[in-house]
Amino acid sequence: MREVFHQSLEDVQARLVEIAELVAIAIDKATTSFATGDVALAEEVISEDAIIDEKTVALDEMAIQLLAMQQPVAGDLRIVVAALRMSASLERMGDIAEHIAQFTRLRFPARAIPTGLKSTFTRMGELDVQLANKLTELLQTQDLELAEEIRNADDEIDELHVSVFEKVLGDTWTGEATETVDATLASRFFERFADHAVSIAKKVHYLATGDWDTHTEEPIVEPHYPNH
Amino acid sequence: MREVFHQSLEDVQARLVEIAELVAIAIDKATTSFATGDVALAEEVISEDAIIDEKTVALDEMAIQLLAMQQPVAGDLRIVVAALRMSASLERMGDIAEHIAQFTRLRFPARAIPTGLKSTFTRMGELDVQLANKLTELLQTQDLELAEEIRNADDEIDELHVSVFEKVLGDTWTGEATETVDATLASRFFERFADHAVSIAKKVHYLATGDWDTHTEEPIVEPHYPNH
Repeated sequence: MREVFHQSLEDVQARLVEIAELVAIAIDKATTSFATGDVALAEEVISEDAIIDEKTVALDEMAIQLLAMQQPVAGDLRIVVAALRMSASLERMGDIAEHIAQFTRLRFPARAIPTGLKSTFTRMGELDVQLANKLTELLQTQDLELAEEIRNADDEIDELHVSVFEKVLGDTWTGEATETVDATLASRFFERFADHAVSIAKKVHYLATGDWDTHTEEPIVEPHYPNH
Repeated sequence: MREVFHQSLEDVQARLVEIAELVAIAIDKATTSFATGDVALAEEVISEDAIIDEKTVALDEMAIQLLAMQQPVAGDLRIVVAALRMSASLERMGDIAEHIAQFTRLRFPARAIPTGLKSTFTRMGELDVQLANKLTELLQTQDLELAEEIRNADDEIDELHVSVFEKVLGDTWTGEATETVDATLASRFFERFADHAVSIAKKVHYLATGDWDTHTEEPIVEPHYPNH
């Protein structure tokens, strides 16, 4: 990615970073509320998602204006198109954080983390927060090592996602249907959040290196069932 | 939406329709295989998803070329940007059809539809196929009545999605953890497929009428638990 941006491209980049920061705050609050049963924190995530949505709309409008007024070509054009895609992914990440917060509110005053999966979900939450913070920094700096770290964190989340299924489908699982459903859905939310982050990281990588692999961004994920 | 397209916009529209047709075929095969346990059909869906991915990449490249070469403004610009978003949604719908097919393959030689939910999932499958066919026609004709029909079908799928949860969380559910997990994930796939179709229909509606509500395209869906 070019180091010297036109003013408008710098504006687009700044707004992407701003939205990524809001998403990082949202996932931090959401995963904390999920682990602790803090419904007030969950309510903040739910109401603040509207701000993420508004800023995404504003960013998209800015990108469209830029296309219309400045009619960028070549690399600049790809940056603007990539920004439109990244904003859609960031908005979806905000929605996922909101879904996690909704679990907390739904299960209150009980905790939302299903029995026997506390350490797993705590770790998945930590990784999602790390991912979101690294993503914000990547969008700010284009330091491609961060893209690599994001993909490694995603690999670990995928493994934890498999472990959730191993647990709920295993012989020692004592959870009722409600906990089975909660674990299944929640695990998928944490995993999809990471997938979106990887998708954005790949786009940044592409813009920097010309290596186009955007359309493997959502890897085909076999339902993560252990062999049985 | 303008009735007379520039040649390039017509090309973009034609390719969107082509991808939508492939998605409609995919969901038809996937839901049929899911209901009947036809693993050969499932394998077709899984391998054919690569074609949907390739055509999406080609469409995106065409859209970018159009932006670079013709530098459209105003309504034409919005059409091209909308096409980029619609292609991303269509690709995701293809992935979801593939996930449903993967269930079939995973559970073979048993059927993938969990006990006691056969009529529900059969109906959800029918609705998703209808949705995909109406979507293809909508992209071809811009007949906004189809957009309305798509939203109605989505409403019915949402109700069926709630009913799946009522069943697996209710007193009469005799399914084991595996079936609970299968029902939860599969229902979510059928429901997300419909959400993406609605998202595309809203964009077509916007382009035709100027009524912009794209960013409510993925409605916040409270985990569909009945009151208990």
